[in-house]
Amino acid sequence: MGSRWKEKAAEATALVDPMSKIVSRLQSSLIKSDSHGILSGYSVLLAAHLEQTETLNQACFGRPIITSEKDKQWFQLSLEEAFYLCYVMKCIKIVGGNNCPISDTELLQYMAPKKDRFPVLLKAYTHLRIKNWVVRPGSQYGADFVAYRHHPALVHSEYAVLVISEEDGDENGRLRVWSDFHCTLRLCGSVAKTLLVLFISKNGDHGDVCSSCMDNYNVEERIITRWIPEHSRENQRTEPKKSFKSQA
Amino acid sequence: MGSRWKEKAAEATALVDPMSKIVSRLQSSLIKSDSHGILSGYSVLLAAHLEQTETLNQACFGRPIITSEKDKQWFQLSLEEAFYLCYVMKCIKIVGGNNCPISDTELLQYMAPKKDRFPVLLKAYTHLRIKNWVVRPGSQYGADFVAYRHHPALVHSEYAVLVISEEDGDENGRLRVWSDFHCTLRLCGSVAKTLLVLFISKNGDHGDVCSSCMDNYNVEERIITRWIPEHSRENQRTEPKKSFKSQA
Repeated sequence: MGSRWKEKAAEATALVDPMSKIVSRLQSSLIKSDSHGILSGYSVLLAAHLEQTETLNQACFGRPIITSEKDKQWFQLSLEEAFYLCYVMKCIKIVGGNNCPISDTELLQYMAPKKDRFPVLLKAYTHLRIKNWVVRPGSQYGADFVAYRHHPALVHSEYAVLVISEEDGDENGRLRVWSDFHCTLRLCGSVAKTLLVLFISKNGDHGDVCSSCMDNYNVEERIITRWIPEHSRENQRTEPKKSFKSQA
Repeated sequence: MGSRWKEKAAEATALVDPMSKIVSRLQSSLIKSDSHGILSGYSVLLAAHLEQTETLNQACFGRPIITSEKDKQWFQLSLEEAFYLCYVMKCIKIVGGNNCPISDTELLQYMAPKKDRFPVLLKAYTHLRIKNWVVRPGSQYGADFVAYRHHPALVHSEYAVLVISEEDGDENGRLRVWSDFHCTLRLCGSVAKTLLVLFISKNGDHGDVCSSCMDNYNVEERIITRWIPEHSRENQRTEPKKSFKSQA
């Protein structure tokens, strides 16, 4: 399908300042200011000064919330975003009500019951974010996430991401019957996205949820598209095979 | 969503000659000519004379196949269509290779292994056809069937039909997770169809497949649409509730 940039200059803008650079700018800035996120129910609140506000927006983390405070801007991070900035990027600490920093394992144990299938969705989120994809919720397209090559203001999302895990059990999960495949592929086609399925499996059973579990998950990536016979005829110019890869 | 007629005069044409009339014309004609369908793998072949050809096309049963025979037109009926004409409409007999008529139970026992979930799909098909809906395969939209108010040449299909049965077991079936709902409703919305879910359940366990099993299935109809809060405000004109009903 390829990237669908929202305007002519967008691709050039993205090339000059790729997501990898923006995110590492954000990382340095948050480390420098010793930033703390505050656990608050189903999200984490993070205060940012002016320059950080811009970088958080550019990196597409959290959403700004309106308060009466003039000197700082508060951001509401999703659980996945907060865990990523804390555990993977190591650029924020997260504190509870008593203002004490929470360990990674405590954090995961707090977050896991808040959201169905949280550990596997978190693994999928970090897997894509590490590759510098911008990851946003995908429920509008019946997916777990959508993945953007750069900021959503510049480009349409390229992948609808379904996360499938052996932990889902037999009665849950997607793509178990043909009609679900047909439905998902037809929808993805109509909104010009490619279906990316991430299969998450666990290396051994480590019992309780702990932050190191995150490293024990395997992720297998599969792109699913319709097979169009005409494109596979030997007397036609064959297009190079599309592969799902990390990006700078 | 309502009917989307393909041209201005289509609705009037359909009113003058409703599907109920066309189908009963077909029934009389097939009874009069003592028509026999021939079992042939995954379909049933039916010979029709000129006038019947037109009525079969109007009623949207089978698809005409090209042969060198001048005096009759052959139709290829799907298993559901053949069973419906034979068992429900009682207007054709079905014969095997030896030209002997096959009983309804034998027929169902022949058909059932040919297609996954055949008895419940057949029940859904007959349930809708009896109400004079034209029923066609729905795989293009990730559904089991699509249902038309009249001939597909006159009107777009109104319902994408998913058939869900307790027999599907835990590991199969659709609409078990929210993302599948989102996906299906988004797709239905984008192709202007309403999602009709038929839940098929069995009265008691009668063991082997037999034609009378068909009468022991219950069908529950549910339409699923997005809830749009604005449409439910008391200061707005409320639209009459849409109900799924039989049609003349």
